Amino acid sequence: MKRLKAIVAYDGSSYHGWQKQPNMLGIQEVIEKVLYQIHKQEVEITASGRTDAKVHALGQVFHFDSDKNLSGYQWKQAMNRLLPSTIRIQDVEEVDCDFHARFDCQKKQYDYYISFAIDNPFLSPYVNCIPYKLDFSYMRECAHVFLGTHDFTSFTSAKIDPRKPRIKTIYQIDLIEEKQGLKISIVGNGFLRYMVRMIVQTLIEAGRHRISKEDMIEMLEAKNKMSCRYKADANGLYLVKVWYGGESDES
Amino acid sequence: MKRLKAIVAYDGSSYHGWQKQPNMLGIQEVIEKVLYQIHKQEVEITASGRTDAKVHALGQVFHFDSDKNLSGYQWKQAMNRLLPSTIRIQDVEEVDCDFHARFDCQKKQYDYYISFAIDNPFLSPYVNCIPYKLDFSYMRECAHVFLGTHDFTSFTSAKIDPRKPRIKTIYQIDLIEEKQGLKISIVGNGFLRYMVRMIVQTLIEAGRHRISKEDMIEMLEAKNKMSCRYKADANGLYLVKVWYGGESDES
Repeated sequence: MKRLKAIVAYDGSSYHGWQKQPNMLGIQEVIEKVLYQIHKQEVEITASGRTDAKVHALGQVFHFDSDKNLSGYQWKQAMNRLLPSTIRIQDVEEVDCDFHARFDCQKKQYDYYISFAIDNPFLSPYVNCIPYKLDFSYMRECAHVFLGTHDFTSFTSAKIDPRKPRIKTIYQIDLIEEKQGLKISIVGNGFLRYMVRMIVQTLIEAGRHRISKEDMIEMLEAKNKMSCRYKADANGLYLVKVWYGGESDES
Repeated sequence: MKRLKAIVAYDGSSYHGWQKQPNMLGIQEVIEKVLYQIHKQEVEITASGRTDAKVHALGQVFHFDSDKNLSGYQWKQAMNRLLPSTIRIQDVEEVDCDFHARFDCQKKQYDYYISFAIDNPFLSPYVNCIPYKLDFSYMRECAHVFLGTHDFTSFTSAKIDPRKPRIKTIYQIDLIEEKQGLKISIVGNGFLRYMVRMIVQTLIEAGRHRISKEDMIEMLEAKNKMSCRYKADANGLYLVKVWYGGESDES
């Protein structure tokens, strides 16, 4: 038996998120069906973490076990031939048998795209189109509030498991101006459910001068699920990269 | 009563083409519903021509009549507020009462996008992704066959009205290399149904060296609906621009 690590990109707009669920099509289910076709038996896959409905990925990682004797390139070809055009395997490699896509994950990068091109009919599944101006430099200043290690209870879903730790470290938040838009890129050691979208919408509210940096500090320090009412739409969010031990930052 | 000329862009992937039809949502119907909301009565719109299901537009033109006293900018704002994000009015202006979006059309430009980036999960509704290489320079040479005035009976749907003239003039066909792709841009005085897609797929077949320039000349000269079996997928096609009398080429 070999353990394979796969990197997958997907257009989340036609799926109800990563996870298998009754009566809704999740990306995990589509990939497992393809592995069933290849193996003629059930093969379970384990991802670095879930993504929600409408969220996209450029570099989601999952692992699975197989007794097939295929090279990484052959795995990629075999799976992409059977997968829909909206789910594309980018890379497959054999890894140690104890590699675990979720438990071994050390860092993740999410990017969030905002566009001001509100007359463009092609963007809505892929970026958050907003019709007002944002104060980028104030947003950059406010973003510093989230850097470092914090209890992010205020920036997650109210439905979160109370036993789960809510202390996470954010290493980097960059606001990158793009043509008629803005990309907010966040790297951290892990993210709670809705955490990126809640941080992003809070920054958008600051960019509109509806809240201040001081309000944001208060929200974070409150460690209270009711203190942040903001959550950006899922369509602008991309899981860009997942890092594991032994990989350099440049990989 | 005023006559208004509107330019509209749309993502055709979620619509069954321009035309109203029973049980399927056409773009015309969506726009007419919005005009009904504004006028509280039925307002018919007339386009430069139909686009088929899945075909996109950057610059489709339609006209309609209204007794409302709005500026072009106000029209655009009012309609875009009510339209879905996949249909966006680009411009509205008042025109002479005898302006007709279909009959007065002098030239149209269609662009067709081909991509070789087959591992990108975001492209399939917007470009034709093909997994093989094409001989661009031979395609350019072959494209000359279509330039000028011809009877395009061989390059249209078999269902075409036999009384309709099938002589059209193509002014320009450009093959423009793009990052991991190719754009085929065609300007003509008018196009028959499926004509652009049939020309494009014929050029693709030539780019794969499955047919020759001589085969293409024969197909065109046959003036026979059975002589061309090729038709490119709708998803890569964009109606880019419609020209009317009195407009310069640079407009």
